[in-house]
Amino acid sequence: MLTLHDDLLSGNGYKIRLLLTQLGIPFRYRELFVHKGETRTPAFLAINPNGKIPVLVFDDGRTLSESNAILYYFAQGTPYFPDDPFARALVMQWMCFEQYSLEPYLGVARFWTKHPPDRPDLADRMAELMPKGAHALGVMDRHLDAADFFVGDRYSIADISLYAYTHVAEQGGFDLAAYPAVRAWIDRVADRPDHILITQSAFGER
Amino acid sequence: MLTLHDDLLSGNGYKIRLLLTQLGIPFRYRELFVHKGETRTPAFLAINPNGKIPVLVFDDGRTLSESNAILYYFAQGTPYFPDDPFARALVMQWMCFEQYSLEPYLGVARFWTKHPPDRPDLADRMAELMPKGAHALGVMDRHLDAADFFVGDRYSIADISLYAYTHVAEQGGFDLAAYPAVRAWIDRVADRPDHILITQSAFGER
Repeated sequence: MLTLHDDLLSGNGYKIRLLLTQLGIPFRYRELFVHKGETRTPAFLAINPNGKIPVLVFDDGRTLSESNAILYYFAQGTPYFPDDPFARALVMQWMCFEQYSLEPYLGVARFWTKHPPDRPDLADRMAELMPKGAHALGVMDRHLDAADFFVGDRYSIADISLYAYTHVAEQGGFDLAAYPAVRAWIDRVADRPDHILITQSAFGER
Repeated sequence: MLTLHDDLLSGNGYKIRLLLTQLGIPFRYRELFVHKGETRTPAFLAINPNGKIPVLVFDDGRTLSESNAILYYFAQGTPYFPDDPFARALVMQWMCFEQYSLEPYLGVARFWTKHPPDRPDLADRMAELMPKGAHALGVMDRHLDAADFFVGDRYSIADISLYAYTHVAEQGGFDLAAYPAVRAWIDRVADRPDHILITQSAFGER
């Protein structure tokens, strides 16, 4: 059976928990705490030399890291990833946008709110994240103004990827009231069959 | 014909120039200067609402942004992207690593060295980038210790993606002497047929 090494606080890990649950693929859950340094131990670095969760370990010992790469691996050949080559590239475009233009702002602001690092410039750094995160939310809102989902008007791993940190953006201090199309999309994603909460490690558990 | 909107200083744009050249796909080149704010004009935001190069515009007006998504689009069905689903996911894993764990350090340090932003904390911020970039280079060096290329011992878009900012890391103040396996891999990538320099907009031009 697959083993997912993850922190329940992580939106990146949540992406995997959500897709595996929706695909009906069982997995073992191994919880780690990033804020306690548990992703920097020699034992964990042997699994992912980059020192980051989530990581998936297969029965034969192979490992796969990077949340969007894991989504892609399991979505290939399923309705969660399109057949058309250009639509596939658009899914990748939005997942790259998520990791570069959204997660470093929405994700970091939320993590720092829950576990504030001990640094004198924390308030300044938090203040810097806000306009950049707001820019990403604005890009998403304008796109969703004319579309139910991010690519081809169909729920895909692009939506799972972007939903992870966006639906909990307010936990990092972002106000979603300014992004009505994003809010409506959040509701659509949460209404999908077999949806789970970010606090759930697998389907059925609360 | 395809039109690539790009800045010759960008490693992200170079990835596209290199792959299209190696695939023999012609493209028009439209040069912009990021440091002059040319990716934030209304005209450019109409092409990419996220305000970033590279962006590729197709004849029919469709656009595709995010360098690794563009690499993926053109590499599908070519020797630059593997057939095996797990190998494909490993290519994605390394491209995600590149955008999240390498480019924000190596790429930003190089950009700030060439065009220093006017901010009082610049020296502190540069100093923060260095250990994070060094960590990424260490991860790559250990991987390349046992492999000629990043995935399946074969040159792929994972190599193109990682090469872009790594081979010019010293322009951002990183010393590659500490990473001999990375240096040997840089030489292997530069020896590939139809290789072009980061300063070239297309094959044949110098």
